[in-house]
Amino acid sequence: MPCRVRLFCIWSFALLAPVSLMGQRPAAVVPPSALQREYQAIADRIISAALADSAAWQKLAELTDRFGNRISGSESLERAIDWIIERMKSEGLANVRGEPVMVPKWVRGHEMADLVSPRYLRLPMLGLGGSVATPRGGISAEVLVVSSFDDLRANAAQAKGKIVLFDVPFTNYGETVQYRGAGAIEAAKVGAVASMIRSVGPFGLRTPHTGALRYDTTVAKIPHFAITMEDAAMLHRMQNRGEHVVVRVEMEAVTMPDALSRNVMGEIVGRDRPDEVVVMGGHIDSWDVGTGAMDDGGGVVIAWEALRLLKKLGLQPHRTIRAVGWTNEENGGRGGEAYRNAHQAEMGKHVLAIESDGGVFKPIGFGFTGSDSARTILRKIAGLLHRIEADSIAASGGGADIGPIMEAGVPGMGHLVDGTKYFWYHHTEADNIDKLNPREIAMNVAAMAVMAYVVAELPEPLPRLKK
Amino acid sequence: MPCRVRLFCIWSFALLAPVSLMGQRPAAVVPPSALQREYQAIADRIISAALADSAAWQKLAELTDRFGNRISGSESLERAIDWIIERMKSEGLANVRGEPVMVPKWVRGHEMADLVSPRYLRLPMLGLGGSVATPRGGISAEVLVVSSFDDLRANAAQAKGKIVLFDVPFTNYGETVQYRGAGAIEAAKVGAVASMIRSVGPFGLRTPHTGALRYDTTVAKIPHFAITMEDAAMLHRMQNRGEHVVVRVEMEAVTMPDALSRNVMGEIVGRDRPDEVVVMGGHIDSWDVGTGAMDDGGGVVIAWEALRLLKKLGLQPHRTIRAVGWTNEENGGRGGEAYRNAHQAEMGKHVLAIESDGGVFKPIGFGFTGSDSARTILRKIAGLLHRIEADSIAASGGGADIGPIMEAGVPGMGHLVDGTKYFWYHHTEADNIDKLNPREIAMNVAAMAVMAYVVAELPEPLPRLKK
Repeated sequence: MPCRVRLFCIWSFALLAPVSLMGQRPAAVVPPSALQREYQAIADRIISAALADSAAWQKLAELTDRFGNRISGSESLERAIDWIIERMKSEGLANVRGEPVMVPKWVRGHEMADLVSPRYLRLPMLGLGGSVATPRGGISAEVLVVSSFDDLRANAAQAKGKIVLFDVPFTNYGETVQYRGAGAIEAAKVGAVASMIRSVGPFGLRTPHTGALRYDTTVAKIPHFAITMEDAAMLHRMQNRGEHVVVRVEMEAVTMPDALSRNVMGEIVGRDRPDEVVVMGGHIDSWDVGTGAMDDGGGVVIAWEALRLLKKLGLQPHRTIRAVGWTNEENGGRGGEAYRNAHQAEMGKHVLAIESDGGVFKPIGFGFTGSDSARTILRKIAGLLHRIEADSIAASGGGADIGPIMEAGVPGMGHLVDGTKYFWYHHTEADNIDKLNPREIAMNVAAMAVMAYVVAELPEPLPRLKK
Repeated sequence: MPCRVRLFCIWSFALLAPVSLMGQRPAAVVPPSALQREYQAIADRIISAALADSAAWQKLAELTDRFGNRISGSESLERAIDWIIERMKSEGLANVRGEPVMVPKWVRGHEMADLVSPRYLRLPMLGLGGSVATPRGGISAEVLVVSSFDDLRANAAQAKGKIVLFDVPFTNYGETVQYRGAGAIEAAKVGAVASMIRSVGPFGLRTPHTGALRYDTTVAKIPHFAITMEDAAMLHRMQNRGEHVVVRVEMEAVTMPDALSRNVMGEIVGRDRPDEVVVMGGHIDSWDVGTGAMDDGGGVVIAWEALRLLKKLGLQPHRTIRAVGWTNEENGGRGGEAYRNAHQAEMGKHVLAIESDGGVFKPIGFGFTGSDSARTILRKIAGLLHRIEADSIAASGGGADIGPIMEAGVPGMGHLVDGTKYFWYHHTEADNIDKLNPREIAMNVAAMAVMAYVVAELPEPLPRLKK
């Protein structure tokens, strides 16, 4: 999950407020609706089947163990996509394919940072995605530590020729990530030669976090990287003690020509309205650290497993259900754009798009952006998931990959899970399968399967917002 | 805190059971004892003064920021000791000195491990303290993953020429640390060329943990190192899938000739029984990762700050109180032995020894090993700390550094704190000041100061165990 665009950030915020979302959950004791009478038994069958084994966890473990992380333009991403296509076909899913997408290719290369004064210390670091390299031989410069953009502006006169450190403690993702996104621009404006941030996260074990940055054509592109929360705080204390803080950084990062990737997908074809589609999924690319188990292999796997489970249970709805692994969510969003472009003619027939990109922790429900009448129906469907406590429908939802088709009018939904620890792991070497619970992943599979199946079974498509 | 000796491990276990320890806390509402009537006001004064600022946290931050980690034989350890001596003198403490100790000097050097099959992956790792190097050029070998020593013996025929991985999930420190301590011996017995362990800890962010190992003269010394919990589990899954797992490791570790270090100490001299001593402290050495803030800079600083606080408050008891930073606890225990040897003649006059080596998280109280009659008195003194909930006296206590003087008959006490997260950080790069709370450290200062002061004021020395 990145946070480049304001709209997407709102969905990120939702992750941070599971308690308030819980407050919206419908009361358990209400008379059963017609929908509930018709589908509760099927929903229970899906839930029981999902919870019967750890197949989804095992599949995600195999994906992440075999291919590791999967940054756009990498061989590991394309090999992972090949493997998904092969597995989907072997499972008997329909119309399994990769749809071509040209994606940015940023390669980190060798990088390192050292504190050289007041004492020597190797600083664990990660260049931020899209950063330029340092000049060959690196940059060695005095550090100016600031607490905010305002603090930088107040001390602008001291920034020239220095490496600016934004030591901004984590409040929430949306607020703090600004320094990752715009730090290099603001530091360059006041003459800094490089910039670094306190990693964006509430807790770490001397763990740097990567993620995307932005540049601005009006100022110099300077190298921008993240150090750990611990080291950022220490450099700040050193400055406060009046010590001479000097850092040396070397980065070889390079942006290569765009590369060919694919959106990967498979389907259950609708039994009598095959041209109407419920699409669900996550993004198969990741950052180039950790294994992208939460961000977002898990999102891909739960949609895929939901589809496999429905097929295994012989549940073929009126409409087509399509599970997609979008490519290049992290540093380009090209997968979501390419999907919209390739499926432009079907936009009117996309009944619902569901994205999961918040980790696959314990499910809470879904956030929905669309018409009130659709929301009323979706609340009833979510009610079928009361047994696994995934029955909330929050006030808004979506995702970076389905953003383009939502703009084209498709009702959009974001899959919501407990976000308590998501930003401990986000964009780090610690985004691994070990942090994920097999039963919770199975619950997520059940939630996706029930939601997609019942929406695909509705007598009429979900009512759209009036234009 | 190491766990080389069975006795010390028992104290480690105590850290893991804060709840059961809490159960031993005396009820709050009891008639005040004579001791309480005499000392509650003074204790409250000490507590209030300790909690009035964050001086102890700031001192620990300065120690760890300035000198970083402090392994035996390192320049940083000796410079930290110099700084402590200078600061103790400037604070007006008495008899400030470093007492010489020859310590082992193990130097990690360059080290790295790579998974080379079934796919390439750099494995974060730490050589275990005391390990031999690999041959120049490293060792590349197939991996045999086992779950226990029994599992290794059952698969002994397959171990020859391989790198054995002990993938043993954390239960408690005492159980799990056996594989760090004895893994190289058991692996060498069955012909392995190197051995590695799942890092000893309940949680990590792809974080390796170091710590001491043992060798045995009857079998070959093979390189022994720790990989992360995540990678150990992944290698295990790969083996379970029938994949060919190969790791390449390079380690340059070397054991140099013993080096000169010091036990560092300062005192408040007793006003009328200066030859009787209450000694308290922690160990000033650390492993060569992180900054040794919890293990055990914090232990040294709270004893030191307790002494400074008593002096500042003008509280000079009958007996001498001595704050000590022992050296070489982690990989030799020479500091504790040297202290006993240097103070042999005073052993009969050491009224109590208190060690803090479990991190300086929220205090719980103390564990005590000694006579029942002493315990009764110490329970009353601990009662003075009820206000800060540090009033437990657990069934046993001590510490590695005071072990030698406890064997010589000195009543011994271990300072107890909340140990919930201690082993997240233990012997890692994440043992930093950031994880420690200024108020909790101040509470620890108060606990040490009150306990030491009142014991130093008792009309008679604490009754010893009958021999």
